[in-house]
Amino acid sequence: MANGKRVGVLLSGCGFLDGAEIHEATCTLLSLDRRGATLVAMAPDKPQLHVIDHVAQKPQAGATRNVLQEAARIVRGRITPLKGVNADQLDALILPGGFGAAKNLCTYAVDGAAMKVDPDVERLVLAMRAARKPMGFICIAPVIAARLFGSDHVKVTIGNDPATAGHIASWGAEHVECAVDQIVVDQRLELVSTPAYMLGPWIAPVATGIDKLVGAVLEMA
Amino acid sequence: MANGKRVGVLLSGCGFLDGAEIHEATCTLLSLDRRGATLVAMAPDKPQLHVIDHVAQKPQAGATRNVLQEAARIVRGRITPLKGVNADQLDALILPGGFGAAKNLCTYAVDGAAMKVDPDVERLVLAMRAARKPMGFICIAPVIAARLFGSDHVKVTIGNDPATAGHIASWGAEHVECAVDQIVVDQRLELVSTPAYMLGPWIAPVATGIDKLVGAVLEMA
Repeated sequence: MANGKRVGVLLSGCGFLDGAEIHEATCTLLSLDRRGATLVAMAPDKPQLHVIDHVAQKPQAGATRNVLQEAARIVRGRITPLKGVNADQLDALILPGGFGAAKNLCTYAVDGAAMKVDPDVERLVLAMRAARKPMGFICIAPVIAARLFGSDHVKVTIGNDPATAGHIASWGAEHVECAVDQIVVDQRLELVSTPAYMLGPWIAPVATGIDKLVGAVLEMA
Repeated sequence: MANGKRVGVLLSGCGFLDGAEIHEATCTLLSLDRRGATLVAMAPDKPQLHVIDHVAQKPQAGATRNVLQEAARIVRGRITPLKGVNADQLDALILPGGFGAAKNLCTYAVDGAAMKVDPDVERLVLAMRAARKPMGFICIAPVIAARLFGSDHVKVTIGNDPATAGHIASWGAEHVECAVDQIVVDQRLELVSTPAYMLGPWIAPVATGIDKLVGAVLEMA
């Protein structure tokens, strides 16, 4: 049991094409709850970049949604705006993936190697690192760690996608190939990553990788 | 392993206040995938009864969403309209809960004991029973089984809520009190139920109950 370690989970909406990947986020919550961790769920209180019809897999014309309101669906309303969360309140931080992580937490989906990290995300991630508190990055979310800690040569995985791995290397970070049910641990920077739906194909192996990530993060917390 | 048994999962949107409960739906998918079942996800292609802001927990004025499009978020777009699904295509059927089950799959949230079941839901559930194929009902969804099989004195659980248990009894069905991490099995009607978020409090015990339900349903399939 994690004895009530306070673990932040930073969500980016609700749905893999415009928000947080639902399986990844839910499996994170399940692994945390099974280990007795205390959840601090959070999301930016701002409009989503896109609203995607998940049947047609195309943008819904004219639709707007709020990242925080949609993310609240995944945690049954137990969520707080990212702006109000400080590293002092957390023992660890985990970022699930989904396109929302690349659209609403940073601009990777639009800008690729020239991406910028959302200022509130950057503030909290840098503060966690400054406080030597561990973090976990799932699926595409490791690009945020690679962008912010590239100059520290952070080691991460996004599976085996060559284009994304190339961007990660361009920032000075090290990309390590990894299977979906495995993790990559940067012990020095106390940072864990797993490919999840960057590889898929479906929920069981994704859940296995995420459970290992949660276990490794909590061990360092 | 379930050796590719085809299991229908009938969703009612995406989010516990107006759609399918995300943890319940995702834990169902996880338990099915871990057992090697083949998923056939489906939802009604119709407007949601409500769109609820999951932060304020109040209706979003003027908002409309489609049940199928929102449910698609939970299964990464791998979903088919309920109307096109027949019992022939399935070895078993599972209905996760959430208010969506009581708002979009039947009228229980509005009409209580006088509720009606959505005609397409009724058609498929009755066809599954006629074909002697097992079904699982999670959280509030057992009211649908109780309404349709009350005259057969079906045995179900929704946990221990007295008002809902009273409605279930009023239809001729038997309500059995049950803990969140347990299941109730009606062997005669090949029907399994578990309380999930009718009791909560959070995802770990809910997942345990759902895993037992999935195991029991697949054993009968």
